[in-house]
Amino acid sequence: MSETTSILIKDTTILSDKIKKASILIVDNTIEEISNDLSVTDASKVIDGTNKITMPGLVNTHSHVAMTLLRGVGDDEELQTWLNDYIWPKEAKLDEKLVYAGSKLAMAEMIKTGTTTFNDMYFYMEETAKAVEESGIRGVLGYGMIDLFDDEKRKQEIKATKNLIKNSHNTANGRVQVAVAPHAPYTCSEELLSESKKLANKHNLKLHIHVSETQQEVNDLEKQRNQTPFEYLDSIDLLDENTIAAHGVWTTDNEMKLLKEKQVSISHNPSSNMKLASGIAPVSKYIKNDINVAIGTDGVSSNNNLDMFSEMKLTALLQKVNTMNAKTLPAQATFNMATENGARALGINTGSIKEGKLADIVLVNMNVPHMIPVRNPLSNIIYSALGSDVDTVICDGQLLLEDKKLLTINEEDAIYDAKLAAQQL
Amino acid sequence: MSETTSILIKDTTILSDKIKKASILIVDNTIEEISNDLSVTDASKVIDGTNKITMPGLVNTHSHVAMTLLRGVGDDEELQTWLNDYIWPKEAKLDEKLVYAGSKLAMAEMIKTGTTTFNDMYFYMEETAKAVEESGIRGVLGYGMIDLFDDEKRKQEIKATKNLIKNSHNTANGRVQVAVAPHAPYTCSEELLSESKKLANKHNLKLHIHVSETQQEVNDLEKQRNQTPFEYLDSIDLLDENTIAAHGVWTTDNEMKLLKEKQVSISHNPSSNMKLASGIAPVSKYIKNDINVAIGTDGVSSNNNLDMFSEMKLTALLQKVNTMNAKTLPAQATFNMATENGARALGINTGSIKEGKLADIVLVNMNVPHMIPVRNPLSNIIYSALGSDVDTVICDGQLLLEDKKLLTINEEDAIYDAKLAAQQL
Repeated sequence: MSETTSILIKDTTILSDKIKKASILIVDNTIEEISNDLSVTDASKVIDGTNKITMPGLVNTHSHVAMTLLRGVGDDEELQTWLNDYIWPKEAKLDEKLVYAGSKLAMAEMIKTGTTTFNDMYFYMEETAKAVEESGIRGVLGYGMIDLFDDEKRKQEIKATKNLIKNSHNTANGRVQVAVAPHAPYTCSEELLSESKKLANKHNLKLHIHVSETQQEVNDLEKQRNQTPFEYLDSIDLLDENTIAAHGVWTTDNEMKLLKEKQVSISHNPSSNMKLASGIAPVSKYIKNDINVAIGTDGVSSNNNLDMFSEMKLTALLQKVNTMNAKTLPAQATFNMATENGARALGINTGSIKEGKLADIVLVNMNVPHMIPVRNPLSNIIYSALGSDVDTVICDGQLLLEDKKLLTINEEDAIYDAKLAAQQL
Repeated sequence: MSETTSILIKDTTILSDKIKKASILIVDNTIEEISNDLSVTDASKVIDGTNKITMPGLVNTHSHVAMTLLRGVGDDEELQTWLNDYIWPKEAKLDEKLVYAGSKLAMAEMIKTGTTTFNDMYFYMEETAKAVEESGIRGVLGYGMIDLFDDEKRKQEIKATKNLIKNSHNTANGRVQVAVAPHAPYTCSEELLSESKKLANKHNLKLHIHVSETQQEVNDLEKQRNQTPFEYLDSIDLLDENTIAAHGVWTTDNEMKLLKEKQVSISHNPSSNMKLASGIAPVSKYIKNDINVAIGTDGVSSNNNLDMFSEMKLTALLQKVNTMNAKTLPAQATFNMATENGARALGINTGSIKEGKLADIVLVNMNVPHMIPVRNPLSNIIYSALGSDVDTVICDGQLLLEDKKLLTINEEDAIYDAKLAAQQL
């Protein structure tokens, strides 16, 4: 941002690691002060926070945002059929322009439903970076590398990632970070995986990868290597605190130990895992084992939206029924997954409302029938809210949504462009 | 309604048993004509249906709507603790005025999220009937009878139901129907259950009951009677096409046969069953066995909202992962559960958009980021939509919601009254 701005959120209910009533002063891109003594003269912009829950912007730790263009493609099909017969043939037709349109539409949706940071893996990521820069959201962007065990392809993929790092890493006032993103152990050669990790280490980047999504994938790897996916990845030194593994549905007890020891973060994607019948991830077991587990939406073809509020509720409900214990994953633990655990996974100073944190903040309207009464704001956010209750969004100190109106994206244009783009797939 | 009204929904995408583009003419409370030849001069009110999905109003087949006042009470607790320590002590303080306020708030929420018919079991149901009459929604209302095996209490409970029948059945132009509602086999004596069924038969009413919600309940009954819940209910002639059994989580194969033979309807409540860790109902097995299965939200304390769109998505996703088959419960089957199966369960001429059906119709806005592109409107409704996408609601030929604004309920008053009421519990 070129000029210093200040925003005061006055007299609000703050939901973070605990609930309190106060005002919040944002200066430039940082939460400067949280107190009851702030006055309207302290800031150039004042937002009335009464009747609102003010919470950290949500962190979506696994997405393929440009897949908005494929919304509704291949519903009610198995993962492999869905990929081979529906998704991949359409993805082969993607180009820069289409990815830009799909990304822009996704950002409109994410901002309107309270997501301020997302961790993405896809193609033509310079285009997604451009959309991030323009829309004001925060993105960790990885080019999804797939070599299918082909040497030539591997070189091209690594080159594409190197270009992305050069072109986009740490741009847009730091809102764009680049990650190294080999797609999965079953689509990437050992060489590609190893080179990926070296590249990530060299530039101090996160490594984002799909692991242990389906039982089939685990069985195949065990046949080939006599190792489970995380054991394999550990054997080639891929696992550490910079690794974000999406899914982790079929993780064994031995792998749990590895994940804890290596401080790997897991991105849990309940809608996708349920819709594609991949399985139910052992989220409560991750938490018991002190493994950092966050939440992701996955791409919209397997969801079919980017609403993190639905994903939070689903995360809690699915673990309760899966463990046959209603006490499993209470509201605060679920909330942490979608906020501070996500921030920790991505290594970004966001995910909670504290002085010194980045000003990534969402205000939720409580004055609607389905949020009344407000006995416990946290309960209302996890179990009652809809993504559409988000009223105001601030990211990096910039106002992106006010009274449900997008300020940095022309919504009508984004919809029009995405409709046209989708017709070409 | 005192005067004949007509509404034309012009040029819309109709989603019912199939998808088609047409206009819809409503005369009085009935769908008079569906065609492409209707003109704006045919009706006194014209609604522009372009960019909208027009679908039947959703049917919520199991609720306790006045429990909106208990939103957020006893989260993350087991069913029995939740009931004994949290819900029942507060319910003991309920009175007419509080139930009216809670019901009115619920109707605001239901209408805004596209529900036009609900099947309710609670206390002070004359108050809920009054709220139904005023708000224009359609309700099947049962007084929840619990005698705890006490003779005196049983007589009082039956008397309360008889009063409700006399006061409220078939009122509000038929929008209020009364059902006989013994709470559950574990809270009602055999005498109460038998008398309930006789009373239902005498007045040709539906019988609404909780059955087989938890494994504990099934185990207890088997110990006491050496019968499973549906076997027991069948042995006292309670099961027939007028029975709506809520939950049905632990239904055995033998019970499946009974349910089919007796044409019992099941109300599936996925959020509640997950949140209270009751279990996963065998929905796809019900469907395979040709048993009519519909969807309910249950009360908001175990959900915590009344949004049937969330419930539809959850129903599909939960069955897919539970059967480990992504093809299980495709979008159309899920849609049918929330519409025509619900209407069949309740014996009301609603749940689909066909000439001669009651005019219970919902228009959903497609022109929002998370509904773009619209490759398949059905997919967008089941997997992408939020309840807040509902734009227009018509029930019994009367417009209840237009441009997301409630026309028959003063939303501000409903919120204010419910907040005050909740403070008394």
